[in-house]
Amino acid sequence: MSNVQEVMHVVNIRLDDDRSRIIFIDQTQLPNELVFLTVDQEEECYEAIKKLQVRGAPAIGIFAAYTMYVLAKQKKDLPYPEFLKEYRRMSEYINSSRPTAVNLSWAIKRLLKIVEEDPERPVPETVELLGKEADLIRDEDIDMCYRISSYGLSLLKEGEGILTHCNAGPLATSRYGTAIGPMLLGKEKGMHFRVYSDETRPLLQGARLTSYELEKAGVDVTLICDNMASIVMKNGWVDKVFVGCDRIAANGDFANKIGTSGVAILANYYGIPVYTLGPSSTIDMNTPTGDDIRIELRDPDEIKTMWYAKPMALPEVKCYNPAFDVTDHSLLTGIITEKGIVYPPFKENLQKLFGKE
Amino acid sequence: MSNVQEVMHVVNIRLDDDRSRIIFIDQTQLPNELVFLTVDQEEECYEAIKKLQVRGAPAIGIFAAYTMYVLAKQKKDLPYPEFLKEYRRMSEYINSSRPTAVNLSWAIKRLLKIVEEDPERPVPETVELLGKEADLIRDEDIDMCYRISSYGLSLLKEGEGILTHCNAGPLATSRYGTAIGPMLLGKEKGMHFRVYSDETRPLLQGARLTSYELEKAGVDVTLICDNMASIVMKNGWVDKVFVGCDRIAANGDFANKIGTSGVAILANYYGIPVYTLGPSSTIDMNTPTGDDIRIELRDPDEIKTMWYAKPMALPEVKCYNPAFDVTDHSLLTGIITEKGIVYPPFKENLQKLFGKE
Repeated sequence: MSNVQEVMHVVNIRLDDDRSRIIFIDQTQLPNELVFLTVDQEEECYEAIKKLQVRGAPAIGIFAAYTMYVLAKQKKDLPYPEFLKEYRRMSEYINSSRPTAVNLSWAIKRLLKIVEEDPERPVPETVELLGKEADLIRDEDIDMCYRISSYGLSLLKEGEGILTHCNAGPLATSRYGTAIGPMLLGKEKGMHFRVYSDETRPLLQGARLTSYELEKAGVDVTLICDNMASIVMKNGWVDKVFVGCDRIAANGDFANKIGTSGVAILANYYGIPVYTLGPSSTIDMNTPTGDDIRIELRDPDEIKTMWYAKPMALPEVKCYNPAFDVTDHSLLTGIITEKGIVYPPFKENLQKLFGKE
Repeated sequence: MSNVQEVMHVVNIRLDDDRSRIIFIDQTQLPNELVFLTVDQEEECYEAIKKLQVRGAPAIGIFAAYTMYVLAKQKKDLPYPEFLKEYRRMSEYINSSRPTAVNLSWAIKRLLKIVEEDPERPVPETVELLGKEADLIRDEDIDMCYRISSYGLSLLKEGEGILTHCNAGPLATSRYGTAIGPMLLGKEKGMHFRVYSDETRPLLQGARLTSYELEKAGVDVTLICDNMASIVMKNGWVDKVFVGCDRIAANGDFANKIGTSGVAILANYYGIPVYTLGPSSTIDMNTPTGDDIRIELRDPDEIKTMWYAKPMALPEVKCYNPAFDVTDHSLLTGIITEKGIVYPPFKENLQKLFGKE
């Protein structure tokens, strides 16, 4: 077997043997160290998402589901009314850790529904149902990633060059990943691709995570600075752009890591197709367009000092540091989900995907 | 007076009182320390250019001219034939320190011509002429930068937003600079601009130098990561893109810091005019198009480890690390030189600029 298997079998988020604590890979330590952290306190879980120790929309959803199960378990002896009150408070708290990723609120709502649906059910039984639901969210994600990766792979030819931005690999999900899943799945099937990984400033997920995952899996990967995407495309080295997504609006506009819209504009200029790959839970039909997506602004120190031995700019220099940007659907060739590939017109075809013709 | 004056009066390259050594600002130490280095050995001068301690096309030209004068002075007691041989060898050596910047070979050729023009002239006399020529190159640059800045300023309105990439300020030239000269000159005249400075990976000239120079001059500057240019333009914050240039081909294609072509494509997409500002010595009429410009490839460690406390990617990860890229003239609104502003069609209008109609 290809050594991709080694990467595949690293489980990035799981429960311990007692099912009372969450064990996960601290992504901020990669690529220098592979550190597993164990958490069971609400503040720790909130911080893990906030500080990007857990990141990637599907991984956040899985982590949030396990978080709500583990926290609920600690309150299982409360009478239902108090349990419900506490559960709702904790849900809101965990949900506030990152405002942009729809998977966070999606997973939290899915578990909250179980808590709210039957006030008569004994609390310990409800807690066990929450655990099963969290497992299901993870299992569904593994299945979804495999499907998404297969659809993505169907678009690739042997030897092609793919440019990706940020990290939408196994670490960001459960297994395979979304945007880099096709390259990993292709590798398992004996195919060869050339992948260009944008380093993705300011937090360098492309350098630290994507190039790490692909290198470890034996895929030919070249790390570039974000501003080198144009020359790489101009050189004729890129056949497809594959990126992940944090939220897709009803018209196909999508939010993804800051810089994605720039990559898409460049690709359109050079005549290169742009695909975003993600689970259908990422599509928010209640968000009409990208203009309705709230963009998270992050700490200026991420640009100025974080990761550096020395400050890289004057302390008083102002920074604008959004975590994501919105890529207009007009720049997008297709949306690859586990239900298939959606082409323009996105508004109509996304409605069809959800059975509303 | 505005405190821009303080910045203006820092002379980044000069001779010592004996006119036998070069004193210059080590740009790799900024913004944390303002360090002046003193050099008079050929290897030191070569390394200063190679390691980007001196950078910016016009500054390299001035530094190279003083280098050739200082080195020639050390050989002034040689008979002419040996002096000529040594001088040519040193010229070739210094000229090989950076292959892309045309100002380096332009300044070296200009001094070489003086050495070659009169074999009968006593060598010490020739050496003195070299010193005068180096002073002239600097004085011409100060004058050129002022003219370029004035032309650039004529295009700006009070309160406008300007995005710039890399560093084309006083440190890169003699005084005022080229691409950021208009903002500094405007500041002196009491105008206010909002400047967006791309950090410019991998060597972060935008973070370390441009935001430093503008902040110190009291100009409103916001530092962004390179991949944030798209969202800043989409937000409607950018009225003009002003960038420098390392070499302009006869058809208007121009080489500038890696990432410039991407910025230009984004600006074109958003309907924002793109101007490159530089002295006419940057225009190389012997280079028909951008395809004829050789792009310097630099050390992968600049992407992976330089500036960082810890490695930011696996040691075995491959990198593609070009120092510049080529922006097609079709993306360019105008070329601002000390002779005026050149508009399309560039091939014809650049020829007119040089009096070949």
